[in-house]
Amino acid sequence: MDISEDELITAIGRVLSGSGPDVLVPVGDDAAVVRGGTGDLVLTTDAMVEGTHFDRALSTPRDVGYKAIAISVSDIAAMAASPRYALCALTLSDDVDAGWAMELFGGMREASDEFACTLVGGNLARGSEVSVVIGLTGEVARGAAVRRTGAEPGDLVMVTGVLGGAAAGRRLARRGAPWTEDELDAIRRHARPVPRVGEAPVLARHGVTAMIDVSDGLTRDLVRMCEASAVGVRLDLGRVPAHPAAAEGEALGGGEDYELLATMPSEAAFVDAARELAEVFATPLTAIGTITQEGLEATDDLGVTRPLEPAGWDHFR
Amino acid sequence: MDISEDELITAIGRVLSGSGPDVLVPVGDDAAVVRGGTGDLVLTTDAMVEGTHFDRALSTPRDVGYKAIAISVSDIAAMAASPRYALCALTLSDDVDAGWAMELFGGMREASDEFACTLVGGNLARGSEVSVVIGLTGEVARGAAVRRTGAEPGDLVMVTGVLGGAAAGRRLARRGAPWTEDELDAIRRHARPVPRVGEAPVLARHGVTAMIDVSDGLTRDLVRMCEASAVGVRLDLGRVPAHPAAAEGEALGGGEDYELLATMPSEAAFVDAARELAEVFATPLTAIGTITQEGLEATDDLGVTRPLEPAGWDHFR
Repeated sequence: MDISEDELITAIGRVLSGSGPDVLVPVGDDAAVVRGGTGDLVLTTDAMVEGTHFDRALSTPRDVGYKAIAISVSDIAAMAASPRYALCALTLSDDVDAGWAMELFGGMREASDEFACTLVGGNLARGSEVSVVIGLTGEVARGAAVRRTGAEPGDLVMVTGVLGGAAAGRRLARRGAPWTEDELDAIRRHARPVPRVGEAPVLARHGVTAMIDVSDGLTRDLVRMCEASAVGVRLDLGRVPAHPAAAEGEALGGGEDYELLATMPSEAAFVDAARELAEVFATPLTAIGTITQEGLEATDDLGVTRPLEPAGWDHFR
Repeated sequence: MDISEDELITAIGRVLSGSGPDVLVPVGDDAAVVRGGTGDLVLTTDAMVEGTHFDRALSTPRDVGYKAIAISVSDIAAMAASPRYALCALTLSDDVDAGWAMELFGGMREASDEFACTLVGGNLARGSEVSVVIGLTGEVARGAAVRRTGAEPGDLVMVTGVLGGAAAGRRLARRGAPWTEDELDAIRRHARPVPRVGEAPVLARHGVTAMIDVSDGLTRDLVRMCEASAVGVRLDLGRVPAHPAAAEGEALGGGEDYELLATMPSEAAFVDAARELAEVFATPLTAIGTITQEGLEATDDLGVTRPLEPAGWDHFR
């Protein structure tokens, strides 16, 4: 690094908004101080580690910064909450210069502006690899957070958007050009996922019983939701909305799509919610299965049912 | 890793308290949900990176976990706030087993119990080195947070405890046994720093004008406080309380002591605060200098005054 910690912190302070009527003490003190909200406080943390989650040769620092904020916002959205304040713990290696770090913070600023949260503090450390850890607070009306534990037998299972785009984008960015328009769209989805922060409260208002964001692949996150709710599921494979650039398996197991997977007891409520998401956000909402008493099953186009394999993204296996 | 991410999260959930009347959704959902407080919300994040902040050959995982929580608690304490909820983003390398991670969480649990905060969520990632990033919330009565910006010319400068113990402990642990009792005390201070979470509100009540925790060395953090307050200082070197095992320079520049450095306008208030800290916590409070209009100076035992060098711990130089 060609810059001291204090100098970098000062420079970052200039890039960041970090202020506003509710930010009482912004970046630059031992801790940030913000006005407390009136609802419940939602807390999450997520990491982007070089080599595991991004490759500096393939990703711009702006995209890395943007994505780091976006994936934490997605966790807050999956509780039907609104993001509020972000912290960033950044570890930099010797071969990263201050310009890279400033661009990274520029990307965080972009995402913070887009998803209406404020970066109020951080920490800088040195290590052998770059990592960006975001801590994010959110707020939700008292008692209104949506858990992954409430799915009931008979509920419809639904998902926002399309799946497999991010996995396809990761694969296609590594492969290199030329790319079709669909392929470029997939690459963009991988670089800059869009958390469903507006859609989630609409789903909550229409009576979702459980909700989770699809970060590690549809099958894996669906199994997690079923286990947390102590129920089974029958997934209709033919209905799973796949991105046009997704290859075999990427829509089911690819991960990093950050779509919302939710359950709802009423077909009429689903139809109303789908209409509202389409009108307000141009976001599709697709019914892809039914919650059952027990058993994790998938039915294919020919009506053949087999066990659902919890394939997906496991960082440790 | 000999364990999947989901299995490790489940195991960690068993080690952690993570519950209580104010924890509405603990570890295991997309995000944690807690009841919001009535005061201002304080937010900080800090990292412990292998190779930079700890060495797995020299530190037990319990100590690493304990210290990760303790150093974040110290940031909250330096605002005169009380710690509340912690998040942990853990990056593990291939050569760390699940047992090491469980012990790490055991140490976090110990520190969380000791400093009255609750670990409510986390994230696991894989990387080439181990890092532990804590995000911590705190609470303080509205408008009562103490910043580092309020020091005024004429204020007394004071510090809790003794300095240089942690730096000595780091040096002595690397050197190896045999150790004297003082040396063992220094090693313990490095392994398990004790944030001044009880002392800080007492200092605030006695009218501190500025406060900061001494994480990067007395001189460096004193200069930071003076710059933030736009004032100067005359430090009385003969009064700086040094740990008995500290070598030349370690009390001034060693870092990691996590004592509180504060300023107060009144000599009488300082005497009262010192008496209360001694009686309630057996913690010394020592006056070590005076805030001036401008200039960063140090006076030695012979009365010779020279410029104060901002020596200390800079992670990037």
